[in-house]
Amino acid sequence: MGSEQIQTNTDRAKIRATAESMASRQREISISEFFSKNRHLLGFDNPQKALLTAIKEAVDNSLDACEEAGILPTLKVEIRQLAEDRFRIAVEDNGPGIVKAQIPKIFGKLLYGSKFHTLKQARGQQGIGISAAGMYGLLTTGKSIAITSRIGREKPAHYYEIQIDTRKNTPQIITDKVVEWEVPHGTRVEIELIGTYKKGRHSVDDYIRQTAIANPHCEIFYTPPDSNEPQHLQRGSDSLPPEPVEIKPHPYGVELGVLIRMMKETPARQLSAALKRDFSRVSGRVAAEICKAADLKPNANPHTIVVHEAERLYKAINSVKIMSPATSCLSPIREEQILLGLQKEIQADFFTAITRSPTVYRGNPFQVEVGLAYGGKLPGEELIDLLRFANRVPLQYQQSGCAITKAALGIDWRSYGISQSKGALPTGPMVLFVHIASAWVPFTSESKEAVAPYPEIMRELRLALQECGRKLAMHIRAHRRAVDEEKKKSYIEKYIPHIGIALREILGLSARAEKDVVSTLKVVLERSRSKDTIDD
Amino acid sequence: MGSEQIQTNTDRAKIRATAESMASRQREISISEFFSKNRHLLGFDNPQKALLTAIKEAVDNSLDACEEAGILPTLKVEIRQLAEDRFRIAVEDNGPGIVKAQIPKIFGKLLYGSKFHTLKQARGQQGIGISAAGMYGLLTTGKSIAITSRIGREKPAHYYEIQIDTRKNTPQIITDKVVEWEVPHGTRVEIELIGTYKKGRHSVDDYIRQTAIANPHCEIFYTPPDSNEPQHLQRGSDSLPPEPVEIKPHPYGVELGVLIRMMKETPARQLSAALKRDFSRVSGRVAAEICKAADLKPNANPHTIVVHEAERLYKAINSVKIMSPATSCLSPIREEQILLGLQKEIQADFFTAITRSPTVYRGNPFQVEVGLAYGGKLPGEELIDLLRFANRVPLQYQQSGCAITKAALGIDWRSYGISQSKGALPTGPMVLFVHIASAWVPFTSESKEAVAPYPEIMRELRLALQECGRKLAMHIRAHRRAVDEEKKKSYIEKYIPHIGIALREILGLSARAEKDVVSTLKVVLERSRSKDTIDD
Repeated sequence: MGSEQIQTNTDRAKIRATAESMASRQREISISEFFSKNRHLLGFDNPQKALLTAIKEAVDNSLDACEEAGILPTLKVEIRQLAEDRFRIAVEDNGPGIVKAQIPKIFGKLLYGSKFHTLKQARGQQGIGISAAGMYGLLTTGKSIAITSRIGREKPAHYYEIQIDTRKNTPQIITDKVVEWEVPHGTRVEIELIGTYKKGRHSVDDYIRQTAIANPHCEIFYTPPDSNEPQHLQRGSDSLPPEPVEIKPHPYGVELGVLIRMMKETPARQLSAALKRDFSRVSGRVAAEICKAADLKPNANPHTIVVHEAERLYKAINSVKIMSPATSCLSPIREEQILLGLQKEIQADFFTAITRSPTVYRGNPFQVEVGLAYGGKLPGEELIDLLRFANRVPLQYQQSGCAITKAALGIDWRSYGISQSKGALPTGPMVLFVHIASAWVPFTSESKEAVAPYPEIMRELRLALQECGRKLAMHIRAHRRAVDEEKKKSYIEKYIPHIGIALREILGLSARAEKDVVSTLKVVLERSRSKDTIDD
Repeated sequence: MGSEQIQTNTDRAKIRATAESMASRQREISISEFFSKNRHLLGFDNPQKALLTAIKEAVDNSLDACEEAGILPTLKVEIRQLAEDRFRIAVEDNGPGIVKAQIPKIFGKLLYGSKFHTLKQARGQQGIGISAAGMYGLLTTGKSIAITSRIGREKPAHYYEIQIDTRKNTPQIITDKVVEWEVPHGTRVEIELIGTYKKGRHSVDDYIRQTAIANPHCEIFYTPPDSNEPQHLQRGSDSLPPEPVEIKPHPYGVELGVLIRMMKETPARQLSAALKRDFSRVSGRVAAEICKAADLKPNANPHTIVVHEAERLYKAINSVKIMSPATSCLSPIREEQILLGLQKEIQADFFTAITRSPTVYRGNPFQVEVGLAYGGKLPGEELIDLLRFANRVPLQYQQSGCAITKAALGIDWRSYGISQSKGALPTGPMVLFVHIASAWVPFTSESKEAVAPYPEIMRELRLALQECGRKLAMHIRAHRRAVDEEKKKSYIEKYIPHIGIALREILGLSARAEKDVVSTLKVVLERSRSKDTIDD
């Protein structure tokens, strides 16, 4: 049989390798090849997730661009179904647009972008997402990613079709032309891909709804595949969140190897000047203190520092008291907005929210916020609903591997009056909203679905959850008290008339007198009952 | 205050960005910069894990090199403690050594190696691990990774000190010299790093022990930091596992985009020849069938195929019956070796193991093996111990995110006679050993700690676990029966003498006659009891 013969040729015994034969096979691997083989790392491991991930990456970019340019975002998100498993998605924004020369690299090269080297809160950070979505589309349908962009009314709109060359991680331009476009400024991205559209958990619908909750300043027109008319998710607020400001790295977070490189590369000519220039929160006084503690001259040339001097400098930095990092690089949602978002979307009795003060892990400022909705029409017999967000982006997958889930599991919810099985989320009519804002969110994979459990992050999550838990416990206790009072009251109402009848018989009261006695008794008991409650 | 002033300068209000100002900040991110900022993705998120990961990466490389060269591996693994949190690790092998010119790139460049582009089972696959370990050492201690290597007795030994230039992802050679070395051929890697050494769960000791279980052909001399004498883990077997053979991709696993690229790049001049040449299991007959189903001429030029033709070809491939992929690219541990490994390390009553037949996910052949030890001295009141392996490498972290754990959780262990709480691993005196061998293991992150739950992999895991579960259930039932018999027997022994006494009184038997009756009764009852058991 032919296939048997092929088999023998392919699988014939191999001569054992030597160092030389191994060397001949060693070569560089392009980052695109790496991720196209490992596409589950980028969130493209199955068709349902792939559809969501592609949309998410495009929406992240659109929101970041609008906010950075100070524009209130209006987004169109469209999913068109072309075949059972084939979709064409489009995400369009009213952002500042993209300069023509940058379009190919932004959409056709992995690890290219503006946010990786800056320390401030943004949705995108890696320069991978949107090119990866385009790469997945190309891989599964052979079709290019299509981009239309315009940077101003007086400028032409450019239309590009781009394919990533995975062997080299470079963009191949398939089409490049000027087109008519009614949009004065903005960007539209279209990708054709193999996907699955579903409702419910992990759905694009859910993602869009949660995006609106965490971004009340954003307006979205969303057209799912089963609809012709877009759903209009209106803006809840007409003001942009305060723009995060880029900061320099904080000295406490820097690692020895990075410190050595920074000193080698600094344009400053003196050590103390280098420290002041390249770090945040280092004043002249702090720089002098560091140099003294390191036993190094403040006017030493930073470029000639050797490893053991750098080690002293590193230790000195960590021994000197330095102000916490500036937190203007963060833009939390804020308690008020969280409450508004929850109240708009969830029918519950009790709402609370808390925004913790910013703090730092490995030199990166971050901030935790928790919102909680309880009671009302929420289902009481199911595990609570946990909504996770990082830099205002809803996280849909990998719940069990996420620091947020681990923190929620680690809380003793029973002490707040909620039932909970060992090792499980609590059960009850509750929705938890947890947001981590950071200049650099440590995701557990490039697909940005879960946050890594750094100890500092776990601690802040725990404290925020506990604070909300205590507020909830007060509400639950107060609610129980109200129920108890209601019960007492009904007892009074039930027994007093009988006492009236008894008294009438014993004392021979008139019907009139009986009525007076009963109403007096009610007032007296009512009064003593409320007094009891106050004294409780 | 000085620091206040710095603050104001750094955080001053920024002019809102435009498309032009954004473009000026967009640039390429080197893969080393990316991973040095995201080092938790590589397994370097905390000092304890970092120590383990660095050793693991070096051991993986050593074992792969020895096996590929047909050498029975002898490894030295040394951990020296230099300060409270500072260690110098060394891993030395008797492998084929590394050609001088390749050393800098292998140890000072991420995404460089020989295994990424080949389809066969190996421990390393990404070309990231060992350079990442060196990068972590450099980052935390400023010290170079040191390599000594020799490719034969007649050749000199080369010593290198290398630092990765993270901005460019290229090696910087710090030292390059010829040294005296008593080893005839092999490689020694040394890394200085910030770490934590602990015993117990997730420990290096545990990892070394598990490596020995899954690699009985390997001999290890292990010197932990608290010891001067190496521990000698002896070889359990003197034969190398069968060497996996490189195969070509199977047509069923190829994606449309990859197919298009393959046809563009093939040296074959005719479509049918290209299919035969570039895929495994495609004979002339199968190639002809595919061309016919795709309505394409077998002698068409593959380089000029357009997208819609490629789509037809893709559909045709998946409609034609093609032999399963060759599985010579896999090298499972095998049932016998798993049993040997478990029996050597674990004191239990019952052992079983199963090696499933190979199958395929996304075109990648893989194979699942499960071993199980039960009873004996294993603790009965705790969650079972789950040992996870991928391509013979023990997996120590991210248990909850791993396909192996998810599969074990999904089994109804109570039906096999083991107690289990909802959503938890079973409780009982049991150790589960699970191995996935694959030409390409889909890890959930670059740190290779957990396997992604592809449906085909989950299915094989489930079937293998169920098969072992059924064998265990038989053992447990048999064991219960033995206990029951023991009970019956003790009843007999307890009551028969009383019957004897009664009979003696009723029938006026002599002591001698009573004794005879009792012993006859015992024999008869014993016989009927065993008959009962057989008839059960």
